[in-house]
Amino acid sequence: MATATIGNSEFDRDTAVTRRAPGVYDADLSAGWTIIQAVNGGYLLALMGRALGDALPHPDPMSVTAHYLTASVPGPASIRTEVVRTGRTMSTGTATLVQTAEDGTEVERLRVIAAYGDLGALPDDVRTTAKPPAIPPYEHCLGADSAPGDRPAIPGSTAIADRLDLRLDPATAGWAVGAPSGKGDMRAWFGLADGRAPDPLSLLLTVDALPPTAFDLGLSGWVPTVELTTHIRRRPAPGPLRVAIVTRNLSGGFLEEDAEVWDSDDHLVAQSRQLARAPQGDE
Amino acid sequence: MATATIGNSEFDRDTAVTRRAPGVYDADLSAGWTIIQAVNGGYLLALMGRALGDALPHPDPMSVTAHYLTASVPGPASIRTEVVRTGRTMSTGTATLVQTAEDGTEVERLRVIAAYGDLGALPDDVRTTAKPPAIPPYEHCLGADSAPGDRPAIPGSTAIADRLDLRLDPATAGWAVGAPSGKGDMRAWFGLADGRAPDPLSLLLTVDALPPTAFDLGLSGWVPTVELTTHIRRRPAPGPLRVAIVTRNLSGGFLEEDAEVWDSDDHLVAQSRQLARAPQGDE
Repeated sequence: MATATIGNSEFDRDTAVTRRAPGVYDADLSAGWTIIQAVNGGYLLALMGRALGDALPHPDPMSVTAHYLTASVPGPASIRTEVVRTGRTMSTGTATLVQTAEDGTEVERLRVIAAYGDLGALPDDVRTTAKPPAIPPYEHCLGADSAPGDRPAIPGSTAIADRLDLRLDPATAGWAVGAPSGKGDMRAWFGLADGRAPDPLSLLLTVDALPPTAFDLGLSGWVPTVELTTHIRRRPAPGPLRVAIVTRNLSGGFLEEDAEVWDSDDHLVAQSRQLARAPQGDE
Repeated sequence: MATATIGNSEFDRDTAVTRRAPGVYDADLSAGWTIIQAVNGGYLLALMGRALGDALPHPDPMSVTAHYLTASVPGPASIRTEVVRTGRTMSTGTATLVQTAEDGTEVERLRVIAAYGDLGALPDDVRTTAKPPAIPPYEHCLGADSAPGDRPAIPGSTAIADRLDLRLDPATAGWAVGAPSGKGDMRAWFGLADGRAPDPLSLLLTVDALPPTAFDLGLSGWVPTVELTTHIRRRPAPGPLRVAIVTRNLSGGFLEEDAEVWDSDDHLVAQSRQLARAPQGDE
């Protein structure tokens, strides 16, 4: 298969939005990015990010917060955006994703507020004490296509798994064979299966594409996101990404997931944190 | 001085809002919470949190994201709220803070999106690997009233310093005497000066009340917040709080500040992250 390019890939086609009126967009939520029954939250975020990138004068998402209100379903959807503020180097906007229910009523799925800027115009200074995640080489990590003896790291055959080139660190994949580490960690190599290179928009998918850290805590079941904030800190270099997610505090039935995304040049390109409901299933 | 109580304290009076119409509130931004020229971002967040607590059916902020659009000034302000979704255990709302400029135009200061719930109704389970910050005892930390030989840890005599009982860990106060650690850390004991106990609303102030971590990196000058997200994870126990803030990645002229707040019972009660512009001043 020829390698897909930015702008001409499955991800780009499935996150396309069509401007119907100023600030109003039509979209078609693809069934190709579902996991179990739900449309993946990172895919939805990328779609909202594309609409905001059109509505705002700056090209790149720098801070994007999403509140997940109701479960999206594959099919038609509308996005309405509002430009909140336009500055010289940054602009701020909101977006709402709505779908029409069977009874004809409009249901809001997602509410987003975001700050956009131009990552290409930023100075090149980096002073970081963060370290890239310690993760084994790609070929030693586990994908959905791992041999039966290795057990697939991604449970079931979900649509999104076909579109991602996700390789889990074996140290955080023990839950797939009933032996979670108990630490609340998840680490993986991440790419798009058709070879499309990463960009700021696809990073919005990347931060929410790994199995839940709750699995590594020995919990099973659904982990619905309440709120997810992503900071895109730099345009990613081409090549595979490394993602490290950690949960440090499960309390009162909620947990946070802190994600870092590192590019092939060893730069920290995205940080995200989400607040999610802890699953009810136990080890 | 008699100890102030929740509901009857300077913080409560200065964050009071008056409902003018359904979802619309009048407020008076106090000059008592300014630092240098600006009204403190955490104080503003608490004020918005109070309005949302009135507008939404659930009492406690659980996830609050604020985008800081323009600099607020002491004086009259209005808050308009929108109820986005009302669920059984959580509700979602937005709020906008506006002030009237000298030429009579309305200027938006702050846009907030938040999820509210009832922290008192959550189960008491805690499974945390996070550790309380290593911070010396209160009496070994440095306050604004430290003797001249110790140098005040809070620069200048700012209004907010009189309202906080803030004691910096000496290890993160070196910048005040020209010897920053270079690590990007800030740790302190935190209380309200009048003795009011902490609650979820005051935690919104707490996460943005310490000197910027950039000072510990050897940078000086203003560190304007672009976006700040706070998760309130638990109602704090009475008594002093410990706050630890760390910056791990300064890149492209921006930095993140990750804060944790721990209560006197050794529970992690709040986590926050902000994206801010790095100051232009250098060591």
